[in-house]
Amino acid sequence: MKTESRLVQWICWLIVITSFFLTGFIIGWFARPTSTDTSHDAGSRRHLREFLDEMRAENIRDHLRKFTRLPHLAGTEQNLQLAEQIKGEWLAYGLDSVEMVPYDVLLSYPNISQPNYISIVDELGNEMFNTSLSEPVPEGYENVSDIVPPYSAFSAQGQPVGDLVYVNYGRTEDFFQLEREMGINVTGKIVIVRYGNVFRGNKVKNAMLHGARGIIMFSDPADYCAPGPYPDGWNLPGGGAQRGNVLNLNGAGDPLTPGYPAKGVCVRVGLPKIPVHPIGYHDPIRAYTHNSCVNMGGDIPPNNWKGALNVSYRIGPGFTDSFSTQKVRMNIHTNNQVTRIYNVIGRLRGAVEPDRYVILGGHRDAWVFGGIDPVTGAAVVHESVRSAGKLLRKGWRPRRSIVFASWDAEEFGLLGSTEWAEENAKVLQERAVAYINADSAIEGMYTLRIDCTPSLHTLVYDITKQVNLNQLSINCLFQDYTVARCFPGSSLGSGSDFEAYFIRLGIAAGRARYTKNRKTERYSSYPVYHSVYETFELVERFYDPSFRKLRAVAQVRGGLIFLLADSQLLPLDASQYAGSLTKYAHTIAQLGQKHPDALVKYGVSFDSLFSAVENFTVAARDFHERLTTLDRTDPIQIRMVNDQLMYLERAFVDPLGLPGRPFYRHVIFAPSSHNKYAGESFPGIYDALFDIERTANPKEAWDEVRRQISIAAFTVQAAAMTLTPPA
Amino acid sequence: MKTESRLVQWICWLIVITSFFLTGFIIGWFARPTSTDTSHDAGSRRHLREFLDEMRAENIRDHLRKFTRLPHLAGTEQNLQLAEQIKGEWLAYGLDSVEMVPYDVLLSYPNISQPNYISIVDELGNEMFNTSLSEPVPEGYENVSDIVPPYSAFSAQGQPVGDLVYVNYGRTEDFFQLEREMGINVTGKIVIVRYGNVFRGNKVKNAMLHGARGIIMFSDPADYCAPGPYPDGWNLPGGGAQRGNVLNLNGAGDPLTPGYPAKGVCVRVGLPKIPVHPIGYHDPIRAYTHNSCVNMGGDIPPNNWKGALNVSYRIGPGFTDSFSTQKVRMNIHTNNQVTRIYNVIGRLRGAVEPDRYVILGGHRDAWVFGGIDPVTGAAVVHESVRSAGKLLRKGWRPRRSIVFASWDAEEFGLLGSTEWAEENAKVLQERAVAYINADSAIEGMYTLRIDCTPSLHTLVYDITKQVNLNQLSINCLFQDYTVARCFPGSSLGSGSDFEAYFIRLGIAAGRARYTKNRKTERYSSYPVYHSVYETFELVERFYDPSFRKLRAVAQVRGGLIFLLADSQLLPLDASQYAGSLTKYAHTIAQLGQKHPDALVKYGVSFDSLFSAVENFTVAARDFHERLTTLDRTDPIQIRMVNDQLMYLERAFVDPLGLPGRPFYRHVIFAPSSHNKYAGESFPGIYDALFDIERTANPKEAWDEVRRQISIAAFTVQAAAMTLTPPA
Repeated sequence: MKTESRLVQWICWLIVITSFFLTGFIIGWFARPTSTDTSHDAGSRRHLREFLDEMRAENIRDHLRKFTRLPHLAGTEQNLQLAEQIKGEWLAYGLDSVEMVPYDVLLSYPNISQPNYISIVDELGNEMFNTSLSEPVPEGYENVSDIVPPYSAFSAQGQPVGDLVYVNYGRTEDFFQLEREMGINVTGKIVIVRYGNVFRGNKVKNAMLHGARGIIMFSDPADYCAPGPYPDGWNLPGGGAQRGNVLNLNGAGDPLTPGYPAKGVCVRVGLPKIPVHPIGYHDPIRAYTHNSCVNMGGDIPPNNWKGALNVSYRIGPGFTDSFSTQKVRMNIHTNNQVTRIYNVIGRLRGAVEPDRYVILGGHRDAWVFGGIDPVTGAAVVHESVRSAGKLLRKGWRPRRSIVFASWDAEEFGLLGSTEWAEENAKVLQERAVAYINADSAIEGMYTLRIDCTPSLHTLVYDITKQVNLNQLSINCLFQDYTVARCFPGSSLGSGSDFEAYFIRLGIAAGRARYTKNRKTERYSSYPVYHSVYETFELVERFYDPSFRKLRAVAQVRGGLIFLLADSQLLPLDASQYAGSLTKYAHTIAQLGQKHPDALVKYGVSFDSLFSAVENFTVAARDFHERLTTLDRTDPIQIRMVNDQLMYLERAFVDPLGLPGRPFYRHVIFAPSSHNKYAGESFPGIYDALFDIERTANPKEAWDEVRRQISIAAFTVQAAAMTLTPPA
Repeated sequence: MKTESRLVQWICWLIVITSFFLTGFIIGWFARPTSTDTSHDAGSRRHLREFLDEMRAENIRDHLRKFTRLPHLAGTEQNLQLAEQIKGEWLAYGLDSVEMVPYDVLLSYPNISQPNYISIVDELGNEMFNTSLSEPVPEGYENVSDIVPPYSAFSAQGQPVGDLVYVNYGRTEDFFQLEREMGINVTGKIVIVRYGNVFRGNKVKNAMLHGARGIIMFSDPADYCAPGPYPDGWNLPGGGAQRGNVLNLNGAGDPLTPGYPAKGVCVRVGLPKIPVHPIGYHDPIRAYTHNSCVNMGGDIPPNNWKGALNVSYRIGPGFTDSFSTQKVRMNIHTNNQVTRIYNVIGRLRGAVEPDRYVILGGHRDAWVFGGIDPVTGAAVVHESVRSAGKLLRKGWRPRRSIVFASWDAEEFGLLGSTEWAEENAKVLQERAVAYINADSAIEGMYTLRIDCTPSLHTLVYDITKQVNLNQLSINCLFQDYTVARCFPGSSLGSGSDFEAYFIRLGIAAGRARYTKNRKTERYSSYPVYHSVYETFELVERFYDPSFRKLRAVAQVRGGLIFLLADSQLLPLDASQYAGSLTKYAHTIAQLGQKHPDALVKYGVSFDSLFSAVENFTVAARDFHERLTTLDRTDPIQIRMVNDQLMYLERAFVDPLGLPGRPFYRHVIFAPSSHNKYAGESFPGIYDALFDIERTANPKEAWDEVRRQISIAAFTVQAAAMTLTPPA
């Protein structure tokens, strides 16, 4: 009995001990995390708050002040010094590595001993009137040397003489109107056009195509109306002029090495073959009133060709009767030369997926001081790096890697960013999650404007809610951009460094800036754009005295890269892409339906495009539905769907490129062939339809429309396939 | 005291219980696997053994028998039925899904009511002699209908008449020799060339370039020497002729839709503009001895232009004096027509990484029965599917997905495989690990031959050790292929379905087959290639009576896809690539150094290429060194290095393509422009150097060499960058 009860007692104890052991085992089993990711996102949000709050208006002011004291044109000693300063500070802020990446690219500078100008000459060639050689320097900068005078980079050299013809904005349609409706041929003439509406390179190309000997671009007051010229206001003074390159690179980067980094591979892309020169609006007035009282001859142009100069607008060719023997001579001695440029590349290694890159890049080179362009952007990047460094010191590290870039030679054709994209194309194609552009953070005072690829819409909406928009146009922002700016139509266009990343490589991209009211302020960019009057004071006095607008931009750009780098699931939204594609398809089909008879006659239909968009829409919806049941603890499952999201933008890239533009490869978004600034959706179809109006061979033109519709439909369909469950 | 001891007792028990709990907790904590992968590879090896052993010679024999009873030309009802049969059997074997994927592509067939033939005509146009309209049908197939007669697919239609000129193999150098050294112009003539040495499309292109009106290709016995003509041996009977397409697609796929799947996008690639026709060697003998005793006139050609026909070889033009008024007339009525073709795509979903694809693909369509080409290949794929299905039933599932493909219309220019690659390009680019080709598994009886991209070398070596080569030329195999076949020089070339995957998309690829002794058997392919004599009996009687050669090929092809799909770390070797690049660089530099003076004069140097290869070598070595310390339990770490290995081949692809050949994009491997069959390393440089010999403008030609060296150096450098640690 006793041994029996002993036995029972032992069994009891054994059971108790075993059950405790088992309890321990079970708790141990389940206590051990199988993934480090599960509670990551909440922490990430807390860090986001810290990251955004750390960015200060006064710091951005200081960065802007510091980086705008001297001119820092690409290829100059000052811009190299600035690069070294930025490198040093980024390292001090705490980035894991910062390197200078040099390239030898073709740049273009005025000849110091032979200045560029334009003359009116008499029959003997005597100069009756000359345009000014430089802009009056703003107060406080009188002792600064190395201010490059206004010029058109990559202009041909030469001294062509000819009669002047006025061609409005120099757009394709202006030249068409001039030749077909007004019957004026510009062959052998010198054309003068207003700045604005289309990229200046397009104007130059049109002038060349129509046989002009040279082209002058002037800033018309009608296109730059603002209260008071600088320094009394933010308008362009009459003596100011817009510098700029006049290349038609179509994404090629360095003109000597299209498609390859500037390291040996050498094929020259077509440079302008005629002299080009920019002037302000004082020179035409002076020419008219003071020096020789010349006025252009020929007919009065239609009203929409007339600007706000206080002269009588005429088309030409040549001058009025009494001055008809006088001609215009351009004197252009600008040199192209291979010059070393430097990108600064800073890296912050990702903790979990170091092989996924989120890029924040903007340029550093400026035509003169870069008060707005680009230093408002560079100052914002600088503050983002500082804030990220602060978090890093507290032990934070993002899930993915972040790359910060200070590009060189953007002003000469996006050269620094494009060469780096070319050199790193393979790695970027495989690993880049997104590219956020950081050019000028401001171009107006009205509201925040965010242009981005559709898959970023949802993230943008999320971020703007996190941003401190106190005393900024907050109502306007939400009403405005969600409805009118970002979501429906505003595609990225071109003209800044995101081009190679987005349009060539198919990396999801976005940009954010403070902007003007486009309804009331109809000029391109802003009045003093690319003039010597882009100073620190311009921003401090007029654009953003509190620097809160710049901070908001810093927080939006920074917030985007933060969440792209740190979220477990990539914050990219395929359904938003579907919604945009649907709208774009309707827009482009409507453009085609302006020619209902031709559509029937040549058998052109948009059905295949609509059907592909429909398939994409279903695939996107199903994809996001599957995400809701995803096992968030399985790292490979997470990586698989993230890969699908990351590669979605890539799917819209056609390696064959758009017709005649091998480096513009994005089938959904690219600039129109007729205006680099205008981002068009379905650009292949858009361009084909654009030609319809002016073609001599409609059969061929409509065949091309049909072909472009097929390519677009195929591309959307292929993109839909990337969203279906793998295997 | 009592309560105290009670307390002590309780404390003791508490300690015991707690320690059991803790022990349990600790054991539980560590017992739980954090990754399912750690012991995977050993199990994978065991399954590999089962997978290989399951493949049986007698099954392969049965598949071959079953699939060669009837002709199954692309676009015919029989080939569709065969597709359906394969689909049904693959499903029965146990694949997760099998689908038919149709495309409407341009094919080319003889006109049934107007047969193609070649005549000798007198001055009145009377036919003095006609070539045969078909081949004598082999025994046992007398009642088979739908045997397409020998023809050149995509020949132009027409009945050109002209003097005959003999141009040896019709290579670039043959035409050059004919015109420059022999002073004979072929403009307006009909040329006759021997089959062999270069792809027939290259011969046709050369004839067109030199102004010929038509081209006849004949099988010269000198190029097809084997013991006894079929059915007494495996040589080509005199009445047999080689069918084949004569396109120069350069990777474009369907001629109507280059670059896009055959679904709407329409641009026509250049088709041959002159009639083309193939004949055997009886027709020339008959023409010479029996019908009209004509003989070609003109000079006796150099010895290396003479074949083994029992006639006197002459160059022409035209016939000997007594027959000089007679001419040759081609009568070609072949039609091009858009025709539906069907790929069969079977899938086996991967257990861990379903979004990684390993592809085993080969074509199904045959010119007639396809006894060797392609059914020896298709039978082998079939047996692989059966064996994989057997393993699946036992619960095995590979880590990655496997795709099995039965391509259509390979014979018409790799159409089925290329269209599918075009349709799935995005997904393949992002997810395809490797493509193993499964065309004809046999072309001789000498030894196994494996051609592959260098990163597969190590895996190939591994696999061949696993394969049962009993009674096969095993010693020969290891001595031979490791030294002479696979490793150093034998690059993939083109002419089969791997082309779009490897040369366009940059997916690691390999092929395996039993081959002839290239030293003693100098014909291209094998004697009865593309004739009606390619039957089941040909293989059973002569090539592989035991079907053990075919089993060995099945095991090699199958073993490759097995380990690519199932290994935790991808079995790809970057260091092997480095070794090959080093050899290739030396080879191409030696080719350049044949012109030492020109290299100096035009400043051409291979230094940048050698330096890039050196960087690649270091990067590859460091990469594999890091692999030895990789944390094999971290799924993201594994995935990251696997991505680097998978994308390595992609890094050699240039989206801009090779000069003038936008769909050949692999900078390291592509066919020479002058011979599609010859895979050249550094093809851009190779082609540029090829032109040096014949150029009128050496400056321009050497500039192109320099440019191609730069592109190659840049590409190798970019590939090296993909191997460095990310971020």
